[in-house]
Amino acid sequence: MRFIDVIAKKRDGRALSREDIEAFIAGVSTADLPDYQISALLMAIVIRGMSDQETLWLTDAMVRSGDRLDLSMVPGVTVGKHSTGGVGDKVSIALCPIAAACGVVVPKISGRSLGHTGGTLDKLEAIPGFRVDLSPAEFTQRLVDIGVAITGQTASLVPADKTLYALRDVTATVPSIPLIAASVMSKKLAEGSQALVLDVKCGHGAFMKSEAAARELARLLVAIGTHAGLRTEAMITDMNVPLGRAVGNSVEVIECIELLRGRGPDDTLALVIALAARVLVVSGRYSVAGAEPAVHRVLASGEALEKLRAMVIGQGGDARVLDDYALLPGAAQRRAVVAEHDGFLVSLRADLVGRAAVALGAGRGRIGDPVDHGAGVLIARKPGERVRAGDTILELLYNNTDELGEASALAREAVHVATEPPAPRSLVLGVAT
Amino acid sequence: MRFIDVIAKKRDGRALSREDIEAFIAGVSTADLPDYQISALLMAIVIRGMSDQETLWLTDAMVRSGDRLDLSMVPGVTVGKHSTGGVGDKVSIALCPIAAACGVVVPKISGRSLGHTGGTLDKLEAIPGFRVDLSPAEFTQRLVDIGVAITGQTASLVPADKTLYALRDVTATVPSIPLIAASVMSKKLAEGSQALVLDVKCGHGAFMKSEAAARELARLLVAIGTHAGLRTEAMITDMNVPLGRAVGNSVEVIECIELLRGRGPDDTLALVIALAARVLVVSGRYSVAGAEPAVHRVLASGEALEKLRAMVIGQGGDARVLDDYALLPGAAQRRAVVAEHDGFLVSLRADLVGRAAVALGAGRGRIGDPVDHGAGVLIARKPGERVRAGDTILELLYNNTDELGEASALAREAVHVATEPPAPRSLVLGVAT
Repeated sequence: MRFIDVIAKKRDGRALSREDIEAFIAGVSTADLPDYQISALLMAIVIRGMSDQETLWLTDAMVRSGDRLDLSMVPGVTVGKHSTGGVGDKVSIALCPIAAACGVVVPKISGRSLGHTGGTLDKLEAIPGFRVDLSPAEFTQRLVDIGVAITGQTASLVPADKTLYALRDVTATVPSIPLIAASVMSKKLAEGSQALVLDVKCGHGAFMKSEAAARELARLLVAIGTHAGLRTEAMITDMNVPLGRAVGNSVEVIECIELLRGRGPDDTLALVIALAARVLVVSGRYSVAGAEPAVHRVLASGEALEKLRAMVIGQGGDARVLDDYALLPGAAQRRAVVAEHDGFLVSLRADLVGRAAVALGAGRGRIGDPVDHGAGVLIARKPGERVRAGDTILELLYNNTDELGEASALAREAVHVATEPPAPRSLVLGVAT
Repeated sequence: MRFIDVIAKKRDGRALSREDIEAFIAGVSTADLPDYQISALLMAIVIRGMSDQETLWLTDAMVRSGDRLDLSMVPGVTVGKHSTGGVGDKVSIALCPIAAACGVVVPKISGRSLGHTGGTLDKLEAIPGFRVDLSPAEFTQRLVDIGVAITGQTASLVPADKTLYALRDVTATVPSIPLIAASVMSKKLAEGSQALVLDVKCGHGAFMKSEAAARELARLLVAIGTHAGLRTEAMITDMNVPLGRAVGNSVEVIECIELLRGRGPDDTLALVIALAARVLVVSGRYSVAGAEPAVHRVLASGEALEKLRAMVIGQGGDARVLDDYALLPGAAQRRAVVAEHDGFLVSLRADLVGRAAVALGAGRGRIGDPVDHGAGVLIARKPGERVRAGDTILELLYNNTDELGEASALAREAVHVATEPPAPRSLVLGVAT
């Protein structure tokens, strides 16, 4: 097979064979394929699409491009959890300890902040000493000992995805539901969990802007997981508005600790409970009726908070932060974004709030850029609330003023106050099973 | 402008702006754009297409990526001639001397053989000593002195096209009418002629397989030339069957010399006369009624043959070959491909004959491979002729037997004998003006 014949096949809208796809991923993995051929094929895939069958083969070839975690020594049942990424999405930091407290292990391999979306690893690194570079042996041991661990991806897990993603990022070939699904699912399958719960974000602040696209991605993710023999569910959830009341790193860790103390903001709490309950259900250990009460139980008893404490200690972090937020990196300065007139806050554009947080230093525009863990955005009012002129809507937290002007402009643009209240929106838009 | 936004625009089927296209070609020319971004955009262009306006901008940017020949010191009128490439297409070698003998200069910059199509430069290099690497000054001087010269492209003419073509060749992004049109026309416009005649080949042995695609390419080529202020015409001609009775290098030079002596095969002669007449007409020096008689006159008088002799001498070649074909590289061995049964020769697939010639060494599969000037294929019978079992249809001429088996198989596959004669076909399928 000549590889340009494979490219030509997809260029002309034809389906690739399993052999074509395996040659593609083998060539990516060994670096035998030049990047200009990879990017030409990626563009053809983005425009022409791929069938479910092609996507299954692609995912499978990607998983086999590297190692799979062996979680067989972890007692009990393991469930993977993944979010497609949003603004203020700190769900995993609360959900993993809750699930562990309920006896279900979520072996969480997370990513970093990029663009307007945050990354769980950066948030956890706000905790002094917290290590997100656990070796596979360390990771597995924490799961055995504590039942919860959150770490970064190792180089040996789906190496083909790293090469492909780096190239897609610079060739405008990211927006393809089959490529996104194969990327997400290859990593989740390589993690070796026995079931999966996925949170497909939808809206301004998400990768999937339309509900139709989010539903299609959710369907495909579930189809791939199910085909691989995992009980897989996906929730489609709103990401037009940042989740919760904090966007950043330290501030999101604080929101999670508060949530585990029973003081979380309504929307974050509702989503954490809903997703945690699905984790318990797909584990096979809980009935649909029994799952939510179990979550409430470990929240009320403090067992979930204690699991977070154990996790922080297990990963080298300073667990005193759970009781003293002043030990987390903070922001020297604050600036309020206020309502310009009376009315209702009708929208708070998640993408613009996310970009404001990046401009303040809380996130990164390019892979490898440093992050200011103390910077961020606090959300004083959420859409639907009545506001008066001069009321604080957002608070910008910062140490560096370099891009403060841009951050303020973005934050102001994110806020929309009108005379009529907005139509109420559901946080959970659907479920794919 | 971020270049990935330009890629994304075309990916999503939107039109590029003039600024986008200029940034693209500037990035190609300076090598500032990485090849993976170029190939992603090329694939998006191949699939999504380009408007005539975008193609005009692209052609213009490509022309301006390098030098333009200055032919102002060449007396009289200059007309460019270009063929999109075929098998046995030796038209330029006869046409240029004919036009020069009629007082119209055709400053011909030609290419090399690649794949199943031949290249005028390789054919001319069969003549011992013949130089196809004239400097711009030498080229212009030959045009002034003799009125005819055929040389290779210099590196400074449309450098962007060289980069793009090399990348298109290995990324399955060749088949795009706008990209082909911009590539052809940027080179023709950079040659600095005052008018243009184009031969758009159509069929098995051509790049354009369908008549609809050939007509569309012809239309676009003429539109670009006309927009640049050149009187431009395109003929769409059949390339299902090799042109003439010889495919190779020495053998095609011989066919041209014979043609200029009045002994050319009917189809080559008809096409040379038709295209030469169009060259005379677009020059503005001849009427439609007067052009063909002028061509016949210089053929009959021997003036055209004498122009070829002067051109060979002017470019360092051994002009004795015009009278003694034994001075040209020959083939030590011959093998006949015969009719297997009585009937009519209904087809002779140009692409397969071309590939047989390449297998014998007369062409090249990759840029830079050497060529055996003595090898080739002689065509004893053309479609429409009655044949008897055992009659020779093709004769393979070769010095190297390495791929003789493949060449024989291809040649046999090219021949199709049936009991009924084929429907007569026109060589000229249409004209775009």
